[in-house]
Amino acid sequence: MKTIVLKFGGTSVGSIERIKKAIKIISSHKKGGNNVAVISSAMSGVTNDLVKKSKLISNNFDKAEYDSLLATGEQASCALIAGGLNDIGLKSRSWLSWQIPILTSGPHSGARIENIESKILINYMKLGGIPIITGFQGINSSSRITTLGRGGSDASAIMLAKFLKADECIIYTDVDGIYTTDPRLHKKAKKIKKIFYDEMLEMASLGSKVMQPTSVQDAKLNNINIQVKSSFIKKPGTLITGSKKEFSNQIITGISSTKNDAKITIVGVKDKPGIAASIFKPLSENLINVDMVVQNISLNGKETDITFTIKSEDLKKTEKLIKQNKKISYRELSFDKNVSKVSIIGVGMITTPGITYRMFQALASKKINIMVISTSEIKISVLISDKNIKKAIAVLHKEFKLD
Amino acid sequence: MKTIVLKFGGTSVGSIERIKKAIKIISSHKKGGNNVAVISSAMSGVTNDLVKKSKLISNNFDKAEYDSLLATGEQASCALIAGGLNDIGLKSRSWLSWQIPILTSGPHSGARIENIESKILINYMKLGGIPIITGFQGINSSSRITTLGRGGSDASAIMLAKFLKADECIIYTDVDGIYTTDPRLHKKAKKIKKIFYDEMLEMASLGSKVMQPTSVQDAKLNNINIQVKSSFIKKPGTLITGSKKEFSNQIITGISSTKNDAKITIVGVKDKPGIAASIFKPLSENLINVDMVVQNISLNGKETDITFTIKSEDLKKTEKLIKQNKKISYRELSFDKNVSKVSIIGVGMITTPGITYRMFQALASKKINIMVISTSEIKISVLISDKNIKKAIAVLHKEFKLD
Repeated sequence: MKTIVLKFGGTSVGSIERIKKAIKIISSHKKGGNNVAVISSAMSGVTNDLVKKSKLISNNFDKAEYDSLLATGEQASCALIAGGLNDIGLKSRSWLSWQIPILTSGPHSGARIENIESKILINYMKLGGIPIITGFQGINSSSRITTLGRGGSDASAIMLAKFLKADECIIYTDVDGIYTTDPRLHKKAKKIKKIFYDEMLEMASLGSKVMQPTSVQDAKLNNINIQVKSSFIKKPGTLITGSKKEFSNQIITGISSTKNDAKITIVGVKDKPGIAASIFKPLSENLINVDMVVQNISLNGKETDITFTIKSEDLKKTEKLIKQNKKISYRELSFDKNVSKVSIIGVGMITTPGITYRMFQALASKKINIMVISTSEIKISVLISDKNIKKAIAVLHKEFKLD
Repeated sequence: MKTIVLKFGGTSVGSIERIKKAIKIISSHKKGGNNVAVISSAMSGVTNDLVKKSKLISNNFDKAEYDSLLATGEQASCALIAGGLNDIGLKSRSWLSWQIPILTSGPHSGARIENIESKILINYMKLGGIPIITGFQGINSSSRITTLGRGGSDASAIMLAKFLKADECIIYTDVDGIYTTDPRLHKKAKKIKKIFYDEMLEMASLGSKVMQPTSVQDAKLNNINIQVKSSFIKKPGTLITGSKKEFSNQIITGISSTKNDAKITIVGVKDKPGIAASIFKPLSENLINVDMVVQNISLNGKETDITFTIKSEDLKKTEKLIKQNKKISYRELSFDKNVSKVSIIGVGMITTPGITYRMFQALASKKINIMVISTSEIKISVLISDKNIKKAIAVLHKEFKLD
């Protein structure tokens, strides 16, 4: 008998009709002779509404109360699902994180699951029951409710699969899988049948919104195969795995792109040891995430230019921090909000030489200027003007035979 | 230092603005130098919305899941209140029933509070904290969430006052107290300053919607003085108490009336021992509440007429049950849906003779026909045609000097 963890995202339980659809999916897995455990998100819209209420009460709403407030969303959707399963004659009940318990560590709104006391759930499944478990939350050592941060229900599903030693983990969502690139930006985007954890990690970090990087990392660490599927239409999804079986010889698996990047260049910085640290320390202290960084070679040994990218919402704050920074001197600051990062991702590039060249060549053929380059073992990212983004995706998609 | 329990009803926390008003009230009690503990209901509308969702999922929604679903309403409002108190610099946190715990017995959706582990709350108040506690709910011995049924937050407040040995319990609601009669039915209705538990019990049982009879009973049993007040306007409310201090010499404290009553008469029942039991047993088994009952004296010893009242929503079912009942035979059934019960209530009538006569005389003076009479030590109820209800209240209000 297989044990399957099913996770339903907010849109998959976003209305009574959709909850009924989820109930049918759960029922069909159960009738397939499996042990089934379910993680549910809050009905879509509910969490945002609660967040809005907290903001109307206070701009600096207490974090512990915030978590207790938000946790009600999943409590409600789990009760509705369990009630619906009972209605069609299946044994089911909701489990709140304190009833299991799901123990977390770390700060409110950014907790991580440490342990799930799975025994009680395993016993319940042995009796034929389907436990419906609140995603996105747990309790801390003081028995207060914590939440896991954005996308936390995926993390709940993966950790549940780990602690149940589940054979499968299926993430039901509003898209039917992971695509070679964003279908809204390129019509020829195709669904990926199988993708490696590391590739998915890069895709997730680089803008694919289907899964959070931390959840993919958890799945990788615990070697849990994840199926990403649509709960609306019956279609095969994408398998995220570490297994090398049945992989195609595709070199590049996908292309991702970001929006809302901004580029800053500090021109004529006095070059001395530790200058980069002096620039980036105050940014890091203010939780501003610096992405790509390039420093020109200092020709005369006295001055250099430093270029880096951040999220454009952090631009004003970053500008202020650099101007206040007394540890650096420079001639000029320049900003560009109209930039995007396009990345090609694939484990195949490790063993295939010349990928970088092919990428640059393809972009050059369309007269797309590259501003900054950053590479890792399995991805190459370039910063380009955001007006070129569709063109860049199209030419790269074709170049690497993803069309 | 006094300990005060404050309870906010659904309308008193029905919007962000109203929650902010509740926060101000809590703050002023705290700044008055008291230990303050708060019970909150769900924001008005929230519970109804959840009930609706459960009905759309199933007409026979699982009771345990129903309670877990509904309990989210209070969890959210308590988090919002605690967050708001923190925002204005007061020490406060929400306490969910499982965190204290509040232990209940009895069925889901109709549980009763057995115990509140008040130590943890008392310690928190000693440190200057204001605990905000979810009303209407608790957990049972299997650690599942239970709810207390309609009006359950009042019961939560009264039991909390009991277990905290509180000096005061203030129920904040959308009315500013208990009135001598429904102000919508009689303009001269006046607010009652003080009312005895027993009188309030009768008022509550007889249609006054301010408090549920069970909560009043709990207050009486535990000798807890209750203030009923408006959270919208600053005005003295009504004190519900057992203490005889400062009571006026008013004989009648209030007049209440019901809507939606129906009268059934079974004409020509074969009179034999146990006939009333034979009629009422199936009704009781079907949870139909029989209110007033009159049986005519059987003149020839063979036949009698039995008249009783029920809620009009139970009329069809009652008719069916009587017609199916093979243990009784009768000549005719007659129904009247246009009846109302008007009651005068006051402990003063115990020591004052002639109240019944004065009531009947006053009604007769307005040519109001009395169909059924029912009395207790502190109340007299009469069944009249519902077209006469306003007229009856007016003449009785005047007769007993309540104007």
